[in-house]
Amino acid sequence: MKVSVFRTAHFNAAHRLHNPAWDELKNKQVFGACNNPNYHGHNYELEVKVNGLIDPETGYVIDMKELKTLIEQEVIEPFDHKNLNLDTTEFAHLNPTAENIVVVIWQKLRRRIKPDFDLQVRLYETPRNYVEFAG
Amino acid sequence: MKVSVFRTAHFNAAHRLHNPAWDELKNKQVFGACNNPNYHGHNYELEVKVNGLIDPETGYVIDMKELKTLIEQEVIEPFDHKNLNLDTTEFAHLNPTAENIVVVIWQKLRRRIKPDFDLQVRLYETPRNYVEFAG
Amino acid sequence: MKVSVFRTAHFNAAHRLHNPAWDELKNKQVFGACNNPNYHGHNYELEVKVNGLIDPETGYVIDMKELKTLIEQEVIEPFDHKNLNLDTTEFAHLNPTAENIVVVIWQKLRRRIKPDFDLQVRLYETPRNYVEFAG
Amino acid sequence: MKVSVFRTAHFNAAHRLHNPAWDELKNKQVFGACNNPNYHGHNYELEVKVNGLIDPETGYVIDMKELKTLIEQEVIEPFDHKNLNLDTTEFAHLNPTAENIVVVIWQKLRRRIKPDFDLQVRLYETPRNYVEFAG
Amino acid sequence: MKVSVFRTAHFNAAHRLHNPAWDELKNKQVFGACNNPNYHGHNYELEVKVNGLIDPETGYVIDMKELKTLIEQEVIEPFDHKNLNLDTTEFAHLNPTAENIVVVIWQKLRRRIKPDFDLQVRLYETPRNYVEFAG
Amino acid sequence: MKVSVFRTAHFNAAHRLHNPAWDELKNKQVFGACNNPNYHGHNYELEVKVNGLIDPETGYVIDMKELKTLIEQEVIEPFDHKNLNLDTTEFAHLNPTAENIVVVIWQKLRRRIKPDFDLQVRLYETPRNYVEFAG
Repeated sequence: MKVSVFRTAHFNAAHRLHNPAWDELKNKQVFGACNNPNYHGHNYELEVKVNGLIDPETGYVIDMKELKTLIEQEVIEPFDHKNLNLDTTEFAHLNPTAENIVVVIWQKLRRRIKPDFDLQVRLYETPRNYVEFAG
Repeated sequence: MKVSVFRTAHFNAAHRLHNPAWDELKNKQVFGACNNPNYHGHNYELEVKVNGLIDPETGYVIDMKELKTLIEQEVIEPFDHKNLNLDTTEFAHLNPTAENIVVVIWQKLRRRIKPDFDLQVRLYETPRNYVEFAG
Repeated sequence: MKVSVFRTAHFNAAHRLHNPAWDELKNKQVFGACNNPNYHGHNYELEVKVNGLIDPETGYVIDMKELKTLIEQEVIEPFDHKNLNLDTTEFAHLNPTAENIVVVIWQKLRRRIKPDFDLQVRLYETPRNYVEFAG
Repeated sequence: MKVSVFRTAHFNAAHRLHNPAWDELKNKQVFGACNNPNYHGHNYELEVKVNGLIDPETGYVIDMKELKTLIEQEVIEPFDHKNLNLDTTEFAHLNPTAENIVVVIWQKLRRRIKPDFDLQVRLYETPRNYVEFAG
Repeated sequence: MKVSVFRTAHFNAAHRLHNPAWDELKNKQVFGACNNPNYHGHNYELEVKVNGLIDPETGYVIDMKELKTLIEQEVIEPFDHKNLNLDTTEFAHLNPTAENIVVVIWQKLRRRIKPDFDLQVRLYETPRNYVEFAG
Repeated sequence: MKVSVFRTAHFNAAHRLHNPAWDELKNKQVFGACNNPNYHGHNYELEVKVNGLIDPETGYVIDMKELKTLIEQEVIEPFDHKNLNLDTTEFAHLNPTAENIVVVIWQKLRRRIKPDFDLQVRLYETPRNYVEFAG
């Protein structure tokens, strides 16, 4: 009986899309308003999906309190109320697009979740733009 | 042309998480506030997904009115405004975690839906905690 | 400059609607499935609105962290994962309809919020049924 | 690193479900109120999912502005504020059920999106009834 | 203790905005795509708010089942899956803008609700455009 | 017949809460993580409410296309994808708390809307924290 369990979380952050290998004009053409050198920001909504067998003793796939703690340690503490470009090591040299952020979050959570569980992460940058990564 | 169709429904119920093979302390440690002997409750939101071929005569995979009736008979009537532990046969001896509830609902619906249709059920216990089962 | 600030919170609880002055039949007629003697439950969503002057030093009407703490102390701790009829003093002798719950929450918060602030409380019993009280 | 990106859009349209090969009675029996000869309508909410490799130069799978433009050209311009049965060529001879609409939208977008990208389209006819097609 | 109670409902309808006193050009200039002679449509979401005293015997302001029945009789039955311009007497000679629809719904409900209750109606034409009337 | 009409919009921005009259420690104590010198950000969701008489010729209180244009000119263009502290004149010397932002938006829109219309603005900083101003 493999069941998926989902847990959501959110964090607020500033970011700027920029490729240092390009000149200012090319950055502006590709990234538009997202290239603002003074940054802009988002309420990021996160959905973590873990797929695995139900433990017959607990009736749980994974204890939601444990999953909540993992997300707080790996995602909320390092990213909430931060400037992703300036305040984090993960995006010091990686462009903080939604695509790159969701891969980074998946990698950080993957190390903390048992290998026999499947992991998928969805990240809403806005209610209209979102991304998903499953490894 | 295989298309998935989704239908949502909701029910309100009380429940208590408890493993009778454990003593009171262990139950409290594992299930925390969810172990309250006087029960707590939820607005359960259900999403049923049926995948199959479009019938060229109707343009439907399955008539939504028919799917709605199935969900009402198999899920809403037995579970809505009920205490899952005390008022249902399904959870008299099965811990009513979201994981176990979604498997039970899937099994009840699976018997009523044509075998050439795929079935997946998602159950929101809260907007932040939800589960999914596809057999 | 009087501005309203809103903060939301949620709690999960079991309850039963019942008037002990009536016999079983009348209770069943008036309260229907909500009269289930084994209880049912809800995810209660709460919205607290405080109206007052902006403090020119902070730019705040009220510090949201302070408001969040008040709501946790007065509402979440006593009511979350509880049976409102059995586990609370407030509803030991008061029928826990949404109307009565929202008045009780307003009274508990009113005592803790400065008298020059106006207070309004909205309580969602389900996404389709909700109530509001402003004193 | 294959990531899925999602973009939403919406359009408002009138439609009528009807099979011209059937008589009036059969149409009424199968399609019920949806067979109203004077039409009824919906706010259709669309979710387009594109799965592909992250471009290391941009950090994007696909530029959301480009995807937004495609959706506007292929879906919003021809369908928004239209009568699907009378004002479109796509549904002049095809019953505009949600299932048929989502397949038509997928086919229109598929022609405009690079073949190495996977495409999935979800269409909400109401918040309670929706469909999904992935080719 | 005056408390407001809210109940939501929804209906799907087609409509066309048109002033017969104007020529075609003026109608097109003012109403744009909403003037389409073949109609377009919406999922209308309705919120009915009733304000009154709590009945000490029931703990209710008004029985939600009774309010639900009123809304079904006065709004859902006459308007759901209808063409507002062609299928209703209310909008045969009244332009079915959201503003006019909300006033008509309020008038129909006002006749059925006790005079000592205040009534307010909100109508969502889309999640981004909505209107409210309180008499 | 005075009806309220609502229109929503959204913008994404970075900001920092800071009072230059205070030292660093006091700013940290009062504003916490919101005082991050590198900024953080939000998806701001805006709801504009205009109350006035229905024009009997159009059936409108105000043309929604006109209201949408006003909001774009006064709010979206100056604030979207901006750093409120660095990129705007409005918040160069005013702490960009949600309270101050909603008052500024109200003042900018008030100048553009006819004096016989009432105006109210609601601003969601997150889905859990929001503010409202009506003059």
